[in-house]
Amino acid sequence: MTAFDEGLLSPATAGHDRLVCDAAVLDALVHAERALIAAYLEIGMLSESDHAVILRSWGGGATASDPMIDVASVVEATVAGGNPVIPLIAQLKNRAPEALRPWVHRGATSQDIVDTALMILAATAVESVRHSLTDVIDGLRGLAERHGRDVVAARTLTQHAVPMTLGTRTETWGSGVERASTRLAALEFPAQLAGAAGTRASFAAITGSAEQTQSLVRAFARHAGLAVPAGSWQVSRWPITELGDALVQTIDSLGKIATDVATLSRTEVGELREGSGGGSSAMPQKQNPVESTLIRSAALRAPQLGATLHLAAALAVDERPDGAWHAEWPTLRELLRLALGASAHAISLAENLRVDPGAASRNLAITGGLIVSERLGIVLVPLIGRPRFDELIASAMAGADLGDLLRGLPEAAGLDVEELLDPARYTGVDPVEEEG
Amino acid sequence: MTAFDEGLLSPATAGHDRLVCDAAVLDALVHAERALIAAYLEIGMLSESDHAVILRSWGGGATASDPMIDVASVVEATVAGGNPVIPLIAQLKNRAPEALRPWVHRGATSQDIVDTALMILAATAVESVRHSLTDVIDGLRGLAERHGRDVVAARTLTQHAVPMTLGTRTETWGSGVERASTRLAALEFPAQLAGAAGTRASFAAITGSAEQTQSLVRAFARHAGLAVPAGSWQVSRWPITELGDALVQTIDSLGKIATDVATLSRTEVGELREGSGGGSSAMPQKQNPVESTLIRSAALRAPQLGATLHLAAALAVDERPDGAWHAEWPTLRELLRLALGASAHAISLAENLRVDPGAASRNLAITGGLIVSERLGIVLVPLIGRPRFDELIASAMAGADLGDLLRGLPEAAGLDVEELLDPARYTGVDPVEEEG
Amino acid sequence: MTAFDEGLLSPATAGHDRLVCDAAVLDALVHAERALIAAYLEIGMLSESDHAVILRSWGGGATASDPMIDVASVVEATVAGGNPVIPLIAQLKNRAPEALRPWVHRGATSQDIVDTALMILAATAVESVRHSLTDVIDGLRGLAERHGRDVVAARTLTQHAVPMTLGTRTETWGSGVERASTRLAALEFPAQLAGAAGTRASFAAITGSAEQTQSLVRAFARHAGLAVPAGSWQVSRWPITELGDALVQTIDSLGKIATDVATLSRTEVGELREGSGGGSSAMPQKQNPVESTLIRSAALRAPQLGATLHLAAALAVDERPDGAWHAEWPTLRELLRLALGASAHAISLAENLRVDPGAASRNLAITGGLIVSERLGIVLVPLIGRPRFDELIASAMAGADLGDLLRGLPEAAGLDVEELLDPARYTGVDPVEEEG
Amino acid sequence: MTAFDEGLLSPATAGHDRLVCDAAVLDALVHAERALIAAYLEIGMLSESDHAVILRSWGGGATASDPMIDVASVVEATVAGGNPVIPLIAQLKNRAPEALRPWVHRGATSQDIVDTALMILAATAVESVRHSLTDVIDGLRGLAERHGRDVVAARTLTQHAVPMTLGTRTETWGSGVERASTRLAALEFPAQLAGAAGTRASFAAITGSAEQTQSLVRAFARHAGLAVPAGSWQVSRWPITELGDALVQTIDSLGKIATDVATLSRTEVGELREGSGGGSSAMPQKQNPVESTLIRSAALRAPQLGATLHLAAALAVDERPDGAWHAEWPTLRELLRLALGASAHAISLAENLRVDPGAASRNLAITGGLIVSERLGIVLVPLIGRPRFDELIASAMAGADLGDLLRGLPEAAGLDVEELLDPARYTGVDPVEEEG
Repeated sequence: MTAFDEGLLSPATAGHDRLVCDAAVLDALVHAERALIAAYLEIGMLSESDHAVILRSWGGGATASDPMIDVASVVEATVAGGNPVIPLIAQLKNRAPEALRPWVHRGATSQDIVDTALMILAATAVESVRHSLTDVIDGLRGLAERHGRDVVAARTLTQHAVPMTLGTRTETWGSGVERASTRLAALEFPAQLAGAAGTRASFAAITGSAEQTQSLVRAFARHAGLAVPAGSWQVSRWPITELGDALVQTIDSLGKIATDVATLSRTEVGELREGSGGGSSAMPQKQNPVESTLIRSAALRAPQLGATLHLAAALAVDERPDGAWHAEWPTLRELLRLALGASAHAISLAENLRVDPGAASRNLAITGGLIVSERLGIVLVPLIGRPRFDELIASAMAGADLGDLLRGLPEAAGLDVEELLDPARYTGVDPVEEEG
Repeated sequence: MTAFDEGLLSPATAGHDRLVCDAAVLDALVHAERALIAAYLEIGMLSESDHAVILRSWGGGATASDPMIDVASVVEATVAGGNPVIPLIAQLKNRAPEALRPWVHRGATSQDIVDTALMILAATAVESVRHSLTDVIDGLRGLAERHGRDVVAARTLTQHAVPMTLGTRTETWGSGVERASTRLAALEFPAQLAGAAGTRASFAAITGSAEQTQSLVRAFARHAGLAVPAGSWQVSRWPITELGDALVQTIDSLGKIATDVATLSRTEVGELREGSGGGSSAMPQKQNPVESTLIRSAALRAPQLGATLHLAAALAVDERPDGAWHAEWPTLRELLRLALGASAHAISLAENLRVDPGAASRNLAITGGLIVSERLGIVLVPLIGRPRFDELIASAMAGADLGDLLRGLPEAAGLDVEELLDPARYTGVDPVEEEG
Repeated sequence: MTAFDEGLLSPATAGHDRLVCDAAVLDALVHAERALIAAYLEIGMLSESDHAVILRSWGGGATASDPMIDVASVVEATVAGGNPVIPLIAQLKNRAPEALRPWVHRGATSQDIVDTALMILAATAVESVRHSLTDVIDGLRGLAERHGRDVVAARTLTQHAVPMTLGTRTETWGSGVERASTRLAALEFPAQLAGAAGTRASFAAITGSAEQTQSLVRAFARHAGLAVPAGSWQVSRWPITELGDALVQTIDSLGKIATDVATLSRTEVGELREGSGGGSSAMPQKQNPVESTLIRSAALRAPQLGATLHLAAALAVDERPDGAWHAEWPTLRELLRLALGASAHAISLAENLRVDPGAASRNLAITGGLIVSERLGIVLVPLIGRPRFDELIASAMAGADLGDLLRGLPEAAGLDVEELLDPARYTGVDPVEEEG
Repeated sequence: MTAFDEGLLSPATAGHDRLVCDAAVLDALVHAERALIAAYLEIGMLSESDHAVILRSWGGGATASDPMIDVASVVEATVAGGNPVIPLIAQLKNRAPEALRPWVHRGATSQDIVDTALMILAATAVESVRHSLTDVIDGLRGLAERHGRDVVAARTLTQHAVPMTLGTRTETWGSGVERASTRLAALEFPAQLAGAAGTRASFAAITGSAEQTQSLVRAFARHAGLAVPAGSWQVSRWPITELGDALVQTIDSLGKIATDVATLSRTEVGELREGSGGGSSAMPQKQNPVESTLIRSAALRAPQLGATLHLAAALAVDERPDGAWHAEWPTLRELLRLALGASAHAISLAENLRVDPGAASRNLAITGGLIVSERLGIVLVPLIGRPRFDELIASAMAGADLGDLLRGLPEAAGLDVEELLDPARYTGVDPVEEEG
């Protein structure tokens, strides 16, 4: 057996994707099947001893994955039926004593198990991503503590605009991450147990009543560690698209940080540097912003993956679609992987980011004071009028010293020119005070 | 002047996109500028009379749009600066008496106005979409009242699977729409007023304090009819992507309905028919599901538009990006348009959908009773064992009468064969009861 | 080591993606490094014996892959530098005798090796896809030979429109596949050997001249089995996007077939059936169009992957971009995988597709002859005028027998009503004759 | 009537999209209908006088558009049938004398006209785009003539890597544009004339033979100014996707240039500046790279539009799909618009780009000579070994003067240190020579 993907082409996620690898998926599929027999036990249809016998036959405990089922054997047989549950059930049934086999996967459809398993996987992965985001935010706070008052150039359309504090920038970064984390926290991870076509008819037939069916679904969800679904979502795919959207939003928020870091790490800018920049043997002077690069590579890919999930939702024809559902699996899993990888890289990015205050000061001075031109306009235009102000700025842009020009204005005699030109005095409303 | 797009290639939205057309955008931009002078009035920096003079000079009342500014004149001048606010301000300033011109757009940046205007537009459009969704849901409820108990074939992977009620299907449709509506209702539409680079430095300089700046922002938001922003979101674009995601989710939910309707309207299926199917002069027998078609065309386009918004968010470099922000405008506007159009079409689709119970019954019978094979298995396998059951089904698939086969089983002597084969007795747990 | 992806969630490609798995990528990377030392040998800078010593130290022959380098060891070290070549070179250098190590990767940059390796991989995979497409076309021809003259309903906007032959449909399918194959055949697969920033300065310094550099590049390309590049394409990414576009086009053409097959396999339509439909243990009557489903799942995913490649191309900033390049690798590889999987499934789909002429005939009759209404209009309107014709059609739609209606028309006395109503006489211009 | 889109939110295209505006679309639709009657004339079925009467009734000459049909009246009626051709034909028929009305749109289907019209539009727009690309290439050549030998820093992963000439960079830019232009030039623009469901049955019935049908199609294509189609492409959509791909590739190639220009225009880099940078009234020191910004906004949107076209192609079910076809129209048109706008902006970008050689030199010196570290390694490692070389570089990175360090090496006594450190001596193989 050769694995298709061990991460060779995915440095953005390598080492961070264990929670969503094929073995974890297989685990979650078995977990879902286990939850089903546990639910039959709980509603009193399966005896404790029969339940224990089946469980034991599967070789696993209540929580451990089954080490006896290998991915490859399932993959090989997965193509014929178009999904991995069909061969998995065959293996699970084969292990159980013949008399108990009917209880395996009883009343369920492949989609119940795949959807539930993906939600199990997603819930775990999202929890991990959220832990990472918390660390990212902590890292940014630490950065703000050390350098939040540093004055730097704010840039719009690539050009120096006005001064700002580094704290304002990290606040912007953090607010995006926090918002994404909030979205992740608000996600619902419903179990799926609705039978062949979402009607739950099989369960009603097996359990004998709608009430027992409800109890079964509730027990199943609890054993799967998931929310009780309001109904079938086999072809109402918002649990998938809302999850996808929140993951993309998460990666967006990290991509924004990474994009800024990469930009501010440019050789000419030099205000920031990753703690562990990637080197180059041929060009030892280079300090590549590798983590930003990898996060950005994820950010460039994620939105289109999210779009695929939406398309699948919109095209979920009938009671199970002919392709749209299948398109979701690898797409959602890759999004989870990217979120895991990008958030993990963002932690070390945030924690180890180095600031070069000297470079920031040098950059601030590039425009010879014109970085506060907006402030000058607010103060001077009322005193000298727009035309003379425009002339003054034009002189400064042509090379004249701005301080001299200001000190030469009779109308500005009462002004503290040094203060007026000090970028540190025009950094805006501190976002921390704002909260107070 | 020739308009680029009057809807000739967009029948999915034609007649439903007035709220987000260029004139409405221009209106919203002026609305934002009006909110700014109203805010200065409110915090006591602009006198009532000066405020009134400016307003009057713009030729509009407190709420009406300015009919004197035409879109074309702004468009022509929009390219040089790269956004429509720059030429708009020039026009607005020119109209005001010279002494009051400094109060126009005071302290603001183009992005404050564009972002605020797009949120004004979006809030209105989303409200309209939500009204439409309510009507869609009502339409679906009406349909369920008339035909909810009709028994129809549930289909998975294009094949008849089990029976279901039409009510279960409309419930699925409605739940997706309701979820989308909930998402729309939860959206935040913050105003933007953060100045040149998101620091609010200009406002602090103009108003003299952080507190006054806060008051100004609050007043601005209220006059714009928007939420007070927690901070600048000039480069933290979740208000845009969350809006985009919710719009795509909305269109997904309508796309699912349209896809089902189109499929169930197929000549061979014939269970559903749009109330006002499009005809064909050359082929008068045709009853095209035009509204489903148009909704589906929107659903195929929306996800990729949503992806563009995410990319713009992830690439929002610096304090204003060099292209990512500009990519948002037409993309977000087109998503709003598609949501308006798709939801409007969905109303008449839902309200006028015709059900052909005869076709549904005919279809249910196609498999000669095998549509309840799952139920037969649940009942018979315990009685006759899996091998004999499989034989029985094979005989039925080869053409034998299923009723005869069942009646010929000694073990099934006690069973009510008619009841067992009746699709109406295997439609599952009624979703309405479930709630009870 | 646990593999991330062995195919568990990718039944569309499982069993068909060996050519582009991580081991194959690693192989291609080593192949590229081998081509480089072979090129130095060829231009006379590396002696035959030294070349042989290095090759032997790598444990591989001229063409075989190196079994001593395992993917996992490279993956683990790949994150630090952000690409797999850096750790690979370390391993390759370590094996070579110290004196010869400078010849390993000499003058090259990681991108030279990754880009070249991906082109090696792609060239092989595309060749395989083209073989599959030839088989698909052959399969469709066989189908046309058996059933090309069968008359079936043509459908537009889901409704029966006019009759057509099945041969016209397979011709449409085949023409799309042929076009895609032509596009694949026209692709260029250039090697990349341009050094640190695309200038080839290192090679000029090492070889001593521009001419020798050219010779080196030519030799490298030949040993890699690729085209000689016109120049560096490190940040001019059309070889990647043109490849991506052709792969998406390929999958589109298969998706069209799969979509038609799935639709025409619907229980109510039943004109087509996959040779080996996937069954369902719970619903044994089902014959799921599994291969169509899997191909469609690929077709729903591919376009967005292609879009990511274009974004990466457009954002290829500087002489190597900070993320855009990295986003290409897994995306391009996944597209190759989908094309391999979809085309493999399309072969058996095409070869084994079963036609049910009885179902086709039954369907043709559903509209009671109105499927030839267009023909009737062409013939009758000149005779009886549009108003009477419309009346006649309305009567037929209301249930009257069309033959009787026609026979009752005095003006139509000379017409052969049977012939006029025969769908087989209105199937259009045969595409095969058209060529003659 | 209020136009939906006059360009207010599309500065990237405003002023450049006349060729593809709704009026132009309407024109092209009428052009297609005109080509059809001309084809009937040409094959001898319509008399010259009747043809002239119809033409005259439409109020237009052979080539001019019909000024009497206004877009709005068509748009209003477009929704019912789902496409603009149905109401257009009604208007065209109404104008013609009753006896000649059957010749209007005779035998054709809406898709014939829409597809043909979009190809007419596309052919014209693509020609215009190609003219622009030629001008862009000329502009880049002019730039190369003035500054091609300037030595600048090549950057990889945001960091200075090695020196290069500006000519190498413009060569890379130009090669991407040329490749895209070649792709555009190779496009096929086939007419569509295949009737209700692509079979041409109506034309065979009307003309009486397959041969006459072929003649009709050929004449139609010639009068439409398009290629004769090999067959129907109503549901084999490669003419659309290949067009879309080439447009996206075009925009990619311009996006790459714009991205580099925007980056190299950064305040800290300052090597490039747009000829007519956008200003800011509040921050007069700013020289925004507006054209790069607008081109980039197009480049961020185009790939997802291209993806939608592919989806539509893959989902082109039946003989005319229920939504996929309709999704193409606005999407393809927007891509044409973006290509027109981006290429127009790229001309002035290329022609007016200003180079600041002083900034380039300053930047080159930032690393204190380490920008040629790769060359130093090639020369020195053989002389002093890797460990001592690494030490030397580390000293330089710690601040030591690289020239002094080199001059202090006994082994380097014979080297010309000035030459060795001169970036101009390590710019690589000149791409222009390469061709010679």
